[in-house]
Amino acid sequence: MTTPTSHPFYLDCDTGIDDALALAYLLASPQADVRGIGAVSGNVSAAVGARNTLDLLQLAGHAHIPVAVGAHDPQAGAFRGGAPHVHGANGIGEVSLSTPAADLAPETAAEMLVRLAHEHPGTLRVLAIGPLTNIAEALLLEPELPRLVEGITIMGGAALAPGNITAVAEANIANDPEAAADVFAADWNITLVPLDATMANVLEESHRQELLAAGHPVPQALGEMLGYYFRFYEGLFGRACSAMHDPLAAALAVGGIKAAVAPMVHVAVDTTDGPGRGQTVCDLRGLYLDYPEQPGARCRVVLALDGDFAPHLVEVLLSLAESTTAALASAATSPA
Amino acid sequence: MTTPTSHPFYLDCDTGIDDALALAYLLASPQADVRGIGAVSGNVSAAVGARNTLDLLQLAGHAHIPVAVGAHDPQAGAFRGGAPHVHGANGIGEVSLSTPAADLAPETAAEMLVRLAHEHPGTLRVLAIGPLTNIAEALLLEPELPRLVEGITIMGGAALAPGNITAVAEANIANDPEAAADVFAADWNITLVPLDATMANVLEESHRQELLAAGHPVPQALGEMLGYYFRFYEGLFGRACSAMHDPLAAALAVGGIKAAVAPMVHVAVDTTDGPGRGQTVCDLRGLYLDYPEQPGARCRVVLALDGDFAPHLVEVLLSLAESTTAALASAATSPA
Repeated sequence: MTTPTSHPFYLDCDTGIDDALALAYLLASPQADVRGIGAVSGNVSAAVGARNTLDLLQLAGHAHIPVAVGAHDPQAGAFRGGAPHVHGANGIGEVSLSTPAADLAPETAAEMLVRLAHEHPGTLRVLAIGPLTNIAEALLLEPELPRLVEGITIMGGAALAPGNITAVAEANIANDPEAAADVFAADWNITLVPLDATMANVLEESHRQELLAAGHPVPQALGEMLGYYFRFYEGLFGRACSAMHDPLAAALAVGGIKAAVAPMVHVAVDTTDGPGRGQTVCDLRGLYLDYPEQPGARCRVVLALDGDFAPHLVEVLLSLAESTTAALASAATSPA
Repeated sequence: MTTPTSHPFYLDCDTGIDDALALAYLLASPQADVRGIGAVSGNVSAAVGARNTLDLLQLAGHAHIPVAVGAHDPQAGAFRGGAPHVHGANGIGEVSLSTPAADLAPETAAEMLVRLAHEHPGTLRVLAIGPLTNIAEALLLEPELPRLVEGITIMGGAALAPGNITAVAEANIANDPEAAADVFAADWNITLVPLDATMANVLEESHRQELLAAGHPVPQALGEMLGYYFRFYEGLFGRACSAMHDPLAAALAVGGIKAAVAPMVHVAVDTTDGPGRGQTVCDLRGLYLDYPEQPGARCRVVLALDGDFAPHLVEVLLSLAESTTAALASAATSPA
């Protein structure tokens, strides 16, 4: 399954509709070899997120990829029930998938990440598209983690764009600011994919119809989930469409798309109890001079993309349909 | 001096090069009748700011306008010496003005504001272009102040633009976040003119040359001060030019220019000790749908202007030269 140019990936997610899109994108990308997936509470609880992930893997013919349950609660406080108004009560827009055959991995998400980092020293790519609780836990388990992985791509935060859960905070970061602060304080290469990029790249109804018309259960299920997601975003954008938070981060981590504006800057996470709690405070004061170098900065903040993401996403997702036809022949699955 | 269409103004400032431009703009505007000026520590100490203000009034032939010294220290902590690297050690770019004939007013800035509000009930416009220490003090002195004034225009903060003193905080607000929090919590009409607007409207060297060539001491002195200011901004913009923070707020308060994008939204000030301290947390989540109404919001945040500000500013400042020729005939002044 691994091609010469593919990279081993650990995915940390809270599946979630856009997480489902991101996972499907990774599975469809020959450059990505997903070695393990951890679930964390965010859009849904870690347990439900893990279940949704298993279901999707089964549907896509990748049930061999291990899925571990991670942290249920953030570092401070308790999980507050997720975002059923955005993702549906079951996290995937009330779409029913098959009952998975595979069991959950006998390790926590953090343990899985540390294990994979040791198994693929210097080459593992971490893609975190939920709250950063598991990643912070892994940093505690293995302080050498930053040196063991190639880098981490994080969907989260807002730099110059408004937040989505408060005026300035984005949900992934705001759901566990203390964990995020630990992750941004670690000495590793971070690519942050904030709302600045993800709210500016929208999937339209025409794209959804392309997925529905693919005649294959994976894009079809994603298209059905997006129907739910679109209804939430209609309140924000005034039309049936959606932002593409997690798949955009996946595509950047894989290299399927490139950033056009992505300065390497200092980022701090607000862990106070003030109005900025959960904000990613990105130092973009160099904006007016094309971002002069900031010594010591390790975080690349993606502010704009090179090209239009939606057609690329649809193309890759439709290719998944073709590549999994063989695997599906032996799987008895039926999306609602 | 008051024309039928003019409005009484109280100006609160920390003069300051761009404060000097704002003051000159008000003096040149027939719609503005400046009834009193309070000084606050910011770019320079309150005492130096008051002195600079008196000097400028004398130079402009308006020595009759009373100037009161306001707060030296912010609500929390002590004045930290201002911004000599931006405005020069004397606050006005090392330009030497005459020794003023007028004395300081026998009241504090906050007392002056309260007095003027009572003298002009419902019509006084407050223009605050320094830290908000004096305004917060006036709210304590007279809790009815919000109902007594027509409204307040504040230069300060950053909404979606980066900050200028930290990654997310602008100097006026960051120099006294506690005072700013009091001012934004009061129940009055606020127009906030943040860095989003002021950093996008730049005065160029050609404009400065127009001021220097006016053959009149006021624009000439302003042009000389701007030489100093431009050198600071060259580090930000890569060329000799400057943002126009305070005069832009003055022009909006007077009505000389209009805002093109100015949603009425909730604004909170970060008074924590976290990385967001001093930030104006503006709720701009409605960005994607042209800012739906926010019930209870009282602050209009100016994000973009209608038209080009620099030519307007220069035109108004040059008109000051003409209108003060008579007054100058009797004043013995000589800018360096």
